[in-house]
Amino acid sequence: MLQIRVKPGIEDRIRGFFPWIYRPEIASYSRKPKKGELVVVRDFGGKFLGYGYINPEANIAVRILSFDKEEPITPELIKRRIKEAYDYRKRLYINSNAFRLVHSEGDLLPGLIVDVYGEYAVLEFTTYGMNTFRDAVLEAIVELLRPKGIYEKTSSVAKRVEGVEAKEGVLWGEVPKETTIWEHDLRFVVNIPQGQKTGFFLDQRNARKFVRSLVEPGDRCLDVFCHTGGFALNMKKMGAKEVIAVDLSPLALEVGRKNEKINDLSGIKWVEANAFDYLRKLDSEGEKFDVVVIDPPSFAKNRHAVPNALRGYKELCVRGLRLTKTGGYMAIFSCSFHITESHLLEVLTQASYDVRRQVRVIAKTFQDKDHPWILQMPNTLYLKGVWVEVV
Amino acid sequence: MLQIRVKPGIEDRIRGFFPWIYRPEIASYSRKPKKGELVVVRDFGGKFLGYGYINPEANIAVRILSFDKEEPITPELIKRRIKEAYDYRKRLYINSNAFRLVHSEGDLLPGLIVDVYGEYAVLEFTTYGMNTFRDAVLEAIVELLRPKGIYEKTSSVAKRVEGVEAKEGVLWGEVPKETTIWEHDLRFVVNIPQGQKTGFFLDQRNARKFVRSLVEPGDRCLDVFCHTGGFALNMKKMGAKEVIAVDLSPLALEVGRKNEKINDLSGIKWVEANAFDYLRKLDSEGEKFDVVVIDPPSFAKNRHAVPNALRGYKELCVRGLRLTKTGGYMAIFSCSFHITESHLLEVLTQASYDVRRQVRVIAKTFQDKDHPWILQMPNTLYLKGVWVEVV
Repeated sequence: MLQIRVKPGIEDRIRGFFPWIYRPEIASYSRKPKKGELVVVRDFGGKFLGYGYINPEANIAVRILSFDKEEPITPELIKRRIKEAYDYRKRLYINSNAFRLVHSEGDLLPGLIVDVYGEYAVLEFTTYGMNTFRDAVLEAIVELLRPKGIYEKTSSVAKRVEGVEAKEGVLWGEVPKETTIWEHDLRFVVNIPQGQKTGFFLDQRNARKFVRSLVEPGDRCLDVFCHTGGFALNMKKMGAKEVIAVDLSPLALEVGRKNEKINDLSGIKWVEANAFDYLRKLDSEGEKFDVVVIDPPSFAKNRHAVPNALRGYKELCVRGLRLTKTGGYMAIFSCSFHITESHLLEVLTQASYDVRRQVRVIAKTFQDKDHPWILQMPNTLYLKGVWVEVV
Repeated sequence: MLQIRVKPGIEDRIRGFFPWIYRPEIASYSRKPKKGELVVVRDFGGKFLGYGYINPEANIAVRILSFDKEEPITPELIKRRIKEAYDYRKRLYINSNAFRLVHSEGDLLPGLIVDVYGEYAVLEFTTYGMNTFRDAVLEAIVELLRPKGIYEKTSSVAKRVEGVEAKEGVLWGEVPKETTIWEHDLRFVVNIPQGQKTGFFLDQRNARKFVRSLVEPGDRCLDVFCHTGGFALNMKKMGAKEVIAVDLSPLALEVGRKNEKINDLSGIKWVEANAFDYLRKLDSEGEKFDVVVIDPPSFAKNRHAVPNALRGYKELCVRGLRLTKTGGYMAIFSCSFHITESHLLEVLTQASYDVRRQVRVIAKTFQDKDHPWILQMPNTLYLKGVWVEVV
């Protein structure tokens, strides 16, 4: 098997279970590496550190799957890890039939995302190395879930960065254009082939539950970047008198309207608009809400985009705080690893300075537990939210 | 009224609602200040910034109560703020008859702590300036709560740092040696005169609720620094087979045993011991638990104590992780402002490196909402907890 040695100093981070090795950190190769092949990682002196797979074309050249000398990477290991991931989810009492089954590094399976929507599963290979195990992955999922269908999505990032051959379509059985899942006492239509990400924002399940504790009958609520109405529906379900749900995507809003209908709800105002423009408009009209949730898409795909992203966040927070009544609540989320909770708190502080309002932090949430955050792998934490009350 | 001007550059922080002015930050006084008197705070050029009270002997010389020129500090303002604090608690649906009514800066009432235990209230004045408003405070509490009794506690810090005259005893009505409060479906004995802090750790209410979601019938649980058994009782209530509760205080353990009895529970093992020693002992005996909660007292009363405190936390985390079964849960808390959530995450990362275990973060909690954290007053956030699962 291919062997590499890392430069002195890198070994400590790997022994601390950090699974990534960047290309410039590799000191030597036992031979020319092939894309996607397995590799033994050693420290500069030759001591074993882990087993991984390599992509010499990518910036993250090696991802380690096993830190145990007795546990080389085989299709059986991959299958066992998927089984362990499934067992973990069973312990969580997720109040839904839709959940993330495999969260890449968070389940010690770098490069693999598997989401389950009732009787269907959606796969995503984000690295070349994991893609070489596609047969084992497919087998494991079929064995564990006995699904009616499995759909493959491959992100453009995987194509561009890792050179993964683009696959998009049904891998197994049949997958309808739309399926319906349930969460708590609500049902949601999921458009697997055309929806954003794998079809639904499973990671905000706990935040959707939390928003229910803030909404009171008769409230006026605002769901910004609403996608298919995850927050809006929960607000309405709790008796909000008026809910405005804003998104730029007509497809997402169309699904949102279906969601409203199948839950026997009514009165949500679905607005197709640029959120920044629409918030400015509401603000200039002096509108006020009891609960405002702002859950934007990732503004910072990499660290170079952070300053611009923070300006965007600042504007959202300023508008959001201005649109929130005294005693009302606002939430702001970041789903980018690069925009941290500290960033959000800092931006909120600046925004509250600008709008001359004090805010109480009432909660912090992050991605729900079926998207495990492994402390030693900082990249596994990506979604953070801060909930404040305007004093 | 006394007027002060702050040095150039300080005004921005005050305009951002930060209520403290340190002695060296004061540029000039209109006359010699008297301890506890009211003061108008101005920027270097003379523009109004706020109204506060001054203690020329303390390091934090001025605490601002009002940033509004139209709102000078009067007994009526103090009484209105206490009323607003009470209204805020009513909105929280606290599932208990015990709560913090006033959280000092968190309720824009620096220097005042008021805790309510059923029909009794406990007061604490932590600054000389707030102590001058004791009549207004007492009046407000009597009017709002119509309590059977009010007890005053004054911390040694208030005496030493602020020169507040020590008061300890019944201020109004009658206060029994022990009273019983309820939280969720449990009852707790509170020893107001002799208990730690004002008698009970109200701030961990939400964490006590959260631990219930982790404990399963038959589990083996450990409550370290258990005080009167807040976590231990909730663990037992959820069907834990075995609960060990450790504390150094015989008084706290005695109350803990009473709590067990009045809740018709049994089988909690109350251990009077130094927690560090006891954890070492359990570890050397190879003991393993499903859920371990470690909630130590403040190891860092000031920032100079941080390095030592971190060593203490490191040891607690190492022992705690070793004592937790695979798939089990551990929580670690800091109730010191100086030991931040980032510190806890860093220490946990180091500890998990040492014990060769990976950990998943499953939740972060902080002081419950009746201890408001005002984003602009960093000192109002003091209690942080990180909950992990050992992978």
